[in-house]
Amino acid sequence: MAQSDIENLIKMFAKLPGLGPRSARRAVLHLLKHRESIMQPLTSLMTQTAASVVTCADCGNLDTESPCHICADETRDRSLLCVVEEVADLWAFERGGIYKGIYHVLGGTLSALDGVGPEDLGIPRLMQRAAGTGLKEVIIATNATVDGQTTAHYISQRLKDAGIQTTRLAHGLPIGGELDYMDEGTLSAALSARQSV
Amino acid sequence: MAQSDIENLIKMFAKLPGLGPRSARRAVLHLLKHRESIMQPLTSLMTQTAASVVTCADCGNLDTESPCHICADETRDRSLLCVVEEVADLWAFERGGIYKGIYHVLGGTLSALDGVGPEDLGIPRLMQRAAGTGLKEVIIATNATVDGQTTAHYISQRLKDAGIQTTRLAHGLPIGGELDYMDEGTLSAALSARQSV
Repeated sequence: MAQSDIENLIKMFAKLPGLGPRSARRAVLHLLKHRESIMQPLTSLMTQTAASVVTCADCGNLDTESPCHICADETRDRSLLCVVEEVADLWAFERGGIYKGIYHVLGGTLSALDGVGPEDLGIPRLMQRAAGTGLKEVIIATNATVDGQTTAHYISQRLKDAGIQTTRLAHGLPIGGELDYMDEGTLSAALSARQSV
Repeated sequence: MAQSDIENLIKMFAKLPGLGPRSARRAVLHLLKHRESIMQPLTSLMTQTAASVVTCADCGNLDTESPCHICADETRDRSLLCVVEEVADLWAFERGGIYKGIYHVLGGTLSALDGVGPEDLGIPRLMQRAAGTGLKEVIIATNATVDGQTTAHYISQRLKDAGIQTTRLAHGLPIGGELDYMDEGTLSAALSARQSV
Protein backbone atom coordinates (compact mmCIF):
# COMPACT_ATOMS: atom_id res chain seq x y z
CA MET A 1 0.00 0.00 0.00
CA ALA A 2 1.25 3.42 -0.98
CA GLN A 3 0.73 5.03 2.41
CA SER A 4 2.85 2.50 4.30
CA ASP A 5 5.62 5.01 5.15
CA ILE A 6 3.10 7.34 6.73
CA GLU A 7 1.42 4.48 8.57
CA ASN A 8 4.73 3.14 9.86
CA LEU A 9 5.67 6.61 11.04
CA ILE A 10 2.39 6.90 12.95
CA LYS A 11 2.99 3.46 14.51
CA MET A 12 6.50 4.45 15.62
CA PHE A 13 5.24 7.71 17.11
CA ALA A 14 2.41 5.86 18.86
CA LYS A 15 4.96 3.70 20.69
CA LEU A 16 6.65 6.70 22.34
CA PRO A 17 5.66 7.14 25.97
CA GLY A 18 2.91 9.70 26.42
CA LEU A 19 1.54 9.25 22.89
CA GLY A 20 -1.30 7.02 21.72
CA PRO A 21 -2.59 6.19 18.24
CA ARG A 22 -4.69 9.35 18.02
CA SER A 23 -2.06 11.82 19.22
CA ALA A 24 0.56 10.09 17.05
CA ARG A 25 -1.69 10.58 14.01
CA ARG A 26 -2.18 14.23 14.85
CA ALA A 27 1.54 14.79 15.39
CA VAL A 28 2.53 13.02 12.16
CA LEU A 29 -0.11 14.84 10.14
CA HIS A 30 1.16 18.13 11.58
CA LEU A 31 4.71 17.17 10.58
CA LEU A 32 3.63 16.15 7.07
CA LYS A 33 1.75 19.40 6.58
CA HIS A 34 4.82 21.39 7.61
CA ARG A 35 7.54 19.31 6.00
CA GLU A 36 9.97 22.15 5.39
CA SER A 37 9.32 24.37 8.39
CA ILE A 38 8.99 21.71 11.13
CA MET A 39 9.66 18.15 9.94
CA GLN A 40 13.05 18.68 8.34
CA PRO A 41 14.50 20.86 11.17
CA LEU A 42 13.21 18.31 13.71
CA THR A 43 14.72 15.41 11.77
CA SER A 44 18.13 17.04 11.46
CA LEU A 45 18.13 17.99 15.15
CA MET A 46 17.27 14.37 15.99
CA THR A 47 20.10 13.09 13.80
CA GLN A 48 22.51 15.57 15.37
CA THR A 49 21.40 14.77 18.92
CA ALA A 50 21.42 11.00 18.39
CA ALA A 51 25.01 11.29 17.18
CA SER A 52 26.21 13.61 19.93
CA VAL A 53 24.45 12.31 23.04
CA VAL A 54 26.45 10.00 25.28
CA THR A 55 25.91 8.45 28.69
CA CYS A 56 28.11 10.14 31.29
CA ALA A 57 30.71 7.61 32.42
CA ASP A 58 30.63 9.05 35.94
CA CYS A 59 26.98 9.48 36.84
CA GLY A 60 24.95 7.89 34.01
CA ASN A 61 23.30 11.16 32.91
CA LEU A 62 22.60 11.71 29.19
CA ASP A 63 24.52 14.66 27.78
CA THR A 64 26.49 15.74 24.74
CA GLU A 65 29.75 15.14 26.60
CA SER A 66 31.15 12.71 29.13
CA PRO A 67 31.68 13.63 31.95
CA CYS A 68 28.36 15.47 31.70
CA HIS A 69 27.99 19.19 32.43
CA ILE A 70 27.00 18.43 36.03
CA CYS A 71 29.97 16.15 36.76
CA ALA A 72 32.27 18.63 34.99
CA ASP A 73 30.90 21.63 36.89
CA GLU A 74 33.56 22.76 39.38
CA THR A 75 31.02 24.64 41.49
CA ARG A 76 28.97 21.50 42.36
CA ASP A 77 29.39 20.12 45.86
CA ARG A 78 31.32 16.85 45.43
CA SER A 79 30.72 15.84 49.05
CA LEU A 80 27.03 15.14 48.28
CA LEU A 81 25.96 12.26 46.01
CA CYS A 82 22.29 11.78 45.11
CA VAL A 83 21.25 8.31 43.89
CA VAL A 84 18.26 8.32 41.47
CA GLU A 85 16.57 5.60 39.44
CA GLU A 86 16.40 7.28 36.04
CA VAL A 87 17.81 10.22 34.09
CA ALA A 88 14.31 11.74 34.24
CA ASP A 89 14.61 11.93 38.05
CA LEU A 90 17.95 13.73 37.74
CA TRP A 91 16.34 16.18 35.32
CA ALA A 92 13.48 16.72 37.80
CA PHE A 93 15.97 17.76 40.51
CA GLU A 94 17.83 19.99 38.05
CA ARG A 95 14.62 21.72 36.93
CA GLY A 96 14.00 22.66 40.52
CA GLY A 97 17.56 23.99 40.87
CA ILE A 98 17.35 22.88 44.49
CA TYR A 99 20.31 20.52 44.65
CA LYS A 100 23.94 21.46 44.24
CA GLY A 101 25.67 18.09 44.68
CA ILE A 102 26.41 15.41 42.09
CA TYR A 103 24.32 12.40 41.01
CA HIS A 104 24.39 8.69 40.39
CA VAL A 105 21.81 7.24 37.97
CA LEU A 106 20.98 3.58 38.61
CA GLY A 107 19.03 3.05 35.41
CA GLY A 108 16.22 1.10 37.11
CA THR A 109 15.41 -0.77 40.29
CA LEU A 110 16.37 -4.17 41.63
CA SER A 111 13.88 -6.78 40.51
CA ALA A 112 14.13 -10.50 41.21
CA LEU A 113 11.22 -11.14 38.80
CA ASP A 114 12.89 -9.37 35.87
CA GLY A 115 16.32 -10.66 36.82
CA VAL A 116 17.78 -7.22 37.59
CA GLY A 117 20.61 -7.59 40.10
CA PRO A 118 23.01 -5.08 41.73
CA GLU A 119 25.53 -5.44 38.87
CA ASP A 120 22.90 -4.47 36.27
CA LEU A 121 22.30 -1.20 38.11
CA GLY A 122 25.96 -0.36 38.48
CA ILE A 123 25.79 -0.63 42.27
CA PRO A 124 29.43 -1.82 42.47
CA ARG A 125 30.36 1.39 40.63
CA LEU A 126 28.25 3.38 43.10
CA MET A 127 30.13 1.76 46.01
CA GLN A 128 33.41 2.68 44.31
CA ARG A 129 32.34 6.30 43.89
CA ALA A 130 30.98 6.42 47.42
CA ALA A 131 34.32 5.17 48.78
CA GLY A 132 36.13 7.99 46.96
CA THR A 133 37.75 10.81 48.89
CA GLY A 134 35.77 13.86 49.89
CA LEU A 135 32.31 12.28 49.84
CA LYS A 136 30.37 13.04 53.02
CA GLU A 137 26.83 11.89 52.34
CA VAL A 138 24.84 9.73 49.93
CA ILE A 139 21.19 10.77 49.49
CA ILE A 140 19.02 7.92 48.22
CA ALA A 141 16.28 9.43 46.05
CA THR A 142 14.61 6.37 44.52
CA ASN A 143 10.86 6.46 43.90
CA ALA A 144 8.50 5.89 46.83
CA THR A 145 7.28 2.67 45.18
CA VAL A 146 7.79 -0.88 46.41
CA ASP A 147 10.63 -1.49 43.91
CA GLY A 148 12.21 1.88 44.62
CA GLN A 149 12.12 1.32 48.37
CA THR A 150 13.52 -2.21 48.07
CA THR A 151 16.41 -0.85 46.04
CA ALA A 152 16.91 1.99 48.53
CA HIS A 153 17.01 -0.50 51.39
CA TYR A 154 19.60 -2.66 49.64
CA ILE A 155 21.81 0.30 48.77
CA SER A 156 21.60 1.83 52.23
CA GLN A 157 22.66 -1.49 53.81
CA ARG A 158 25.66 -1.74 51.49
CA LEU A 159 26.63 1.88 52.19
CA LYS A 160 26.21 1.50 55.95
CA ASP A 161 28.43 -1.59 55.90
CA ALA A 162 31.02 0.53 54.13
CA GLY A 163 30.66 3.20 56.84
CA ILE A 164 29.24 5.92 54.57
CA GLN A 165 26.63 8.37 55.83
CA THR A 166 23.35 7.65 54.05
CA THR A 167 20.08 9.58 53.99
CA ARG A 168 16.81 9.26 52.06
CA LEU A 169 14.20 11.77 50.94
CA ALA A 170 11.49 12.63 53.49
CA HIS A 171 8.06 11.07 53.04
CA GLY A 172 4.96 13.08 53.86
CA LEU A 173 2.27 15.32 52.40
CA PRO A 174 3.17 16.88 49.05
CA ILE A 175 3.04 20.70 49.15
CA GLY A 176 -0.48 21.77 48.18
CA GLY A 177 -1.80 18.27 48.96
CA GLU A 178 -5.12 17.77 50.71
CA LEU A 179 -5.44 15.23 53.51
CA ASP A 180 -8.72 13.98 52.12
CA TYR A 181 -7.04 12.83 48.91
CA MET A 182 -3.99 11.18 50.49
CA ASP A 183 -3.61 7.42 50.70
CA GLU A 184 -3.05 5.71 54.05
CA GLY A 185 0.64 5.09 53.37
CA THR A 186 1.34 8.79 52.88
CA LEU A 187 -0.72 9.81 55.91
CA SER A 188 0.96 7.19 58.06
CA ALA A 189 4.43 8.32 56.87
CA ALA A 190 3.56 11.98 57.49
CA LEU A 191 2.24 11.18 60.97
CA SER A 192 5.18 9.11 62.08
CA ALA A 193 7.68 11.69 60.77
CA ARG A 194 5.83 14.63 62.38
CA GLN A 195 7.99 17.52 63.48
CA SER A 196 7.69 19.93 66.39
CA VAL A 197 6.75 23.49 65.51
CA MET B 1 25.06 25.11 27.85
CA ALA B 2 26.03 21.60 26.86
CA GLN B 3 22.51 20.19 26.95
CA SER B 4 21.09 22.71 24.48
CA ASP B 5 20.54 20.11 21.72
CA ILE B 6 18.48 17.96 24.06
CA GLU B 7 16.57 20.99 25.32
CA ASN B 8 15.85 22.21 21.80
CA LEU B 9 14.65 18.75 20.84
CA ILE B 10 12.26 18.71 23.81
CA LYS B 11 10.99 22.17 22.83
CA MET B 12 10.36 21.05 19.25
CA PHE B 13 8.52 17.94 20.38
CA ALA B 14 6.46 19.99 22.85
CA LYS B 15 5.16 22.10 19.97
CA LEU B 16 3.62 19.11 18.17
CA PRO B 17 -0.15 18.87 18.63
CA GLY B 18 -1.11 16.46 21.42
CA LEU B 19 2.20 16.85 23.27
CA GLY B 20 3.04 19.17 26.14
CA PRO B 21 6.33 19.91 27.89
CA ARG B 22 6.07 16.83 30.14
CA SER B 23 5.16 14.29 27.47
CA ALA B 24 7.78 15.81 25.12
CA ARG B 25 10.40 15.30 27.83
CA ARG B 26 9.34 11.70 28.35
CA ALA B 27 9.32 10.99 24.61
CA VAL B 28 12.75 12.56 24.05
CA LEU B 29 14.27 10.77 27.05
CA HIS B 30 12.86 7.50 25.71
CA LEU B 31 14.43 8.24 22.32
CA LEU B 32 17.79 9.17 23.87
CA LYS B 33 17.83 6.00 25.94
CA HIS B 34 17.16 3.90 22.83
CA ARG B 35 19.26 5.78 20.29
CA GLU B 36 20.09 2.80 18.10
CA SER B 37 16.91 0.74 18.39
CA ILE B 38 14.29 3.52 18.19
CA MET B 39 15.73 6.99 17.57
CA GLN B 40 17.78 6.24 14.47
CA PRO B 41 15.11 4.11 12.72
CA LEU B 42 12.54 6.83 13.50
CA THR B 43 14.83 9.55 12.18
CA SER B 44 15.56 7.75 8.93
CA LEU B 45 11.85 6.95 8.43
CA MET B 46 11.07 10.64 8.99
CA THR B 47 13.72 11.69 6.46
CA GLN B 48 12.40 9.17 3.95
CA THR B 49 8.77 10.17 4.49
CA ALA B 50 9.48 13.91 4.39
CA ALA B 51 11.18 13.39 1.05
CA SER B 52 8.54 11.12 -0.46
CA VAL B 53 5.26 12.65 0.74
CA VAL B 54 3.46 14.94 -1.67
CA THR B 55 0.09 16.67 -1.72
CA CYS B 56 -2.23 14.96 -4.21
CA ALA B 57 -2.84 17.40 -7.08
CA ASP B 58 -6.41 16.12 -7.47
CA CYS B 59 -7.85 15.89 -3.98
CA GLY B 60 -5.30 17.48 -1.61
CA ASN B 61 -4.60 14.26 0.33
CA LEU B 62 -1.07 13.60 1.62
CA ASP B 63 0.46 10.49 0.10
CA THR B 64 3.72 9.18 -1.35
CA GLU B 65 2.40 9.71 -4.89
CA SER B 66 0.23 12.16 -6.78
CA PRO B 67 -2.51 11.33 -7.69
CA CYS B 68 -2.86 9.65 -4.29
CA HIS B 69 -3.80 5.99 -3.88
CA ILE B 70 -7.47 6.95 -3.48
CA CYS B 71 -7.65 9.10 -6.62
CA ALA B 72 -5.65 6.45 -8.52
CA ASP B 73 -7.90 3.60 -7.32
CA GLU B 74 -10.02 2.44 -10.28
CA THR B 75 -12.57 0.78 -8.01
CA ARG B 76 -13.59 4.03 -6.26
CA ASP B 77 -16.91 5.55 -7.26
CA ARG B 78 -16.05 8.69 -9.25
CA SER B 79 -19.67 9.87 -9.24
CA LEU B 80 -19.42 10.73 -5.53
CA LEU B 81 -17.22 13.56 -4.25
CA CYS B 82 -16.84 14.18 -0.50
CA VAL B 83 -15.62 17.65 0.56
CA VAL B 84 -13.68 17.69 3.87
CA GLU B 85 -11.81 20.42 5.74
CA GLU B 86 -8.56 18.62 6.49
CA VAL B 87 -6.55 15.54 5.53
CA ALA B 88 -7.29 14.20 9.04
CA ASP B 89 -11.01 14.14 8.17
CA LEU B 90 -10.30 12.16 4.99
CA TRP B 91 -8.27 9.69 7.07
CA ALA B 92 -11.16 9.40 9.53
CA PHE B 93 -13.53 8.35 6.70
CA GLU B 94 -10.92 5.93 5.34
CA ARG B 95 -10.39 4.34 8.76
CA GLY B 96 -14.06 3.55 8.87
CA GLY B 97 -13.91 2.10 5.35
CA ILE B 98 -17.49 3.34 4.97
CA TYR B 99 -17.10 5.54 1.91
CA LYS B 100 -16.19 4.41 -1.58
CA GLY B 101 -16.21 7.70 -3.50
CA ILE B 102 -13.41 10.25 -3.95
CA TYR B 103 -12.50 13.30 -1.86
CA HIS B 104 -11.72 16.98 -2.01
CA VAL B 105 -9.65 18.44 0.85
CA LEU B 106 -10.25 22.17 1.41
CA GLY B 107 -7.35 22.68 3.81
CA GLY B 108 -9.35 24.81 6.23
CA THR B 109 -12.53 26.87 6.46
CA LEU B 110 -13.56 30.25 5.16
CA SER B 111 -12.70 32.92 7.68
CA ALA B 112 -13.19 36.64 7.17
CA LEU B 113 -11.23 37.34 10.36
CA ASP B 114 -8.15 35.38 9.24
CA GLY B 115 -8.53 36.55 5.66
CA VAL B 116 -9.21 33.07 4.26
CA GLY B 117 -11.25 33.38 1.06
CA PRO B 118 -12.62 30.84 -1.45
CA GLU B 119 -9.39 30.96 -3.51
CA ASP B 120 -7.27 30.01 -0.50
CA LEU B 121 -9.34 26.85 -0.02
CA GLY B 122 -9.22 25.84 -3.67
CA ILE B 123 -12.97 26.28 -4.07
CA PRO B 124 -12.57 27.31 -7.75
CA ARG B 125 -10.74 23.98 -8.25
CA LEU B 126 -13.60 22.20 -6.47
CA MET B 127 -16.12 23.85 -8.83
CA GLN B 128 -14.00 22.70 -11.76
CA ARG B 129 -13.90 19.12 -10.51
CA ALA B 130 -17.60 19.18 -9.70
CA ALA B 131 -18.39 20.33 -13.23
CA GLY B 132 -16.43 17.36 -14.64
CA THR B 133 -18.25 14.55 -16.40
CA GLY B 134 -19.66 11.63 -14.45
CA LEU B 135 -20.06 13.37 -11.10
CA LYS B 136 -23.52 12.84 -9.64
CA GLU B 137 -23.31 14.13 -6.08
CA VAL B 138 -21.13 16.29 -3.84
CA ILE B 139 -21.28 15.43 -0.13
CA ILE B 140 -20.24 18.33 2.07
CA ALA B 141 -18.58 16.87 5.17
CA THR B 142 -17.17 19.93 6.91
CA ASN B 143 -17.12 20.02 10.72
CA ALA B 144 -20.34 20.82 12.59
CA THR B 145 -18.74 24.03 13.89
CA VAL B 146 -19.71 27.61 13.04
CA ASP B 147 -16.78 27.97 10.60
CA GLY B 148 -17.42 24.55 9.07
CA GLN B 149 -21.11 25.27 8.58
CA THR B 150 -20.43 28.70 7.09
CA THR B 151 -18.05 27.11 4.60
CA ALA B 152 -20.58 24.36 3.85
CA HIS B 153 -23.29 26.96 3.21
CA TYR B 154 -21.07 28.92 0.82
CA ILE B 155 -20.00 25.81 -1.10
CA SER B 156 -23.54 24.43 -1.34
CA GLN B 157 -24.77 27.76 -2.77
CA ARG B 158 -22.04 27.75 -5.42
CA LEU B 159 -22.76 24.12 -6.32
CA LYS B 160 -26.51 24.68 -6.47
CA ASP B 161 -25.97 27.66 -8.79
CA ALA B 162 -23.95 25.33 -11.01
CA GLY B 163 -26.77 22.79 -10.94
CA ILE B 164 -24.88 20.06 -9.06
CA GLN B 165 -26.64 17.81 -6.57
CA THR B 166 -25.33 18.61 -3.10
CA THR B 167 -25.86 16.86 0.23
CA ARG B 168 -24.44 17.26 3.73
CA LEU B 169 -23.82 14.83 6.61
CA ALA B 170 -26.78 14.23 8.92
CA HIS B 171 -26.80 15.93 12.31
CA GLY B 172 -28.17 14.12 15.35
CA LEU B 173 -27.23 11.97 18.31
CA PRO B 174 -23.85 10.24 18.01
CA ILE B 175 -24.14 6.44 18.29
CA GLY B 176 -23.77 5.51 21.97
CA GLY B 177 -24.56 9.09 23.01
CA GLU B 178 -26.80 9.82 25.99
CA LEU B 179 -29.50 12.49 25.75
CA ASP B 180 -28.57 13.84 29.16
CA TYR B 181 -25.09 14.80 27.94
CA MET B 182 -26.12 16.34 24.61
CA ASP B 183 -26.08 20.08 24.03
CA GLU B 184 -29.21 21.90 22.89
CA GLY B 185 -27.95 22.30 19.35
CA THR B 186 -27.55 18.55 18.88
CA LEU B 187 -30.90 17.76 20.52
CA SER B 188 -32.63 20.37 18.40
CA ALA B 189 -31.01 19.01 15.22
CA ALA B 190 -31.91 15.44 16.12
CA LEU B 191 -35.51 16.44 16.88
CA SER B 192 -36.08 18.40 13.70
CA ALA B 193 -34.52 15.65 11.55
CA ARG B 194 -36.53 12.88 13.25
CA GLN B 195 -37.44 9.94 11.08
CA SER B 196 -40.47 7.69 11.01
CA VAL B 197 -39.90 4.14 12.24
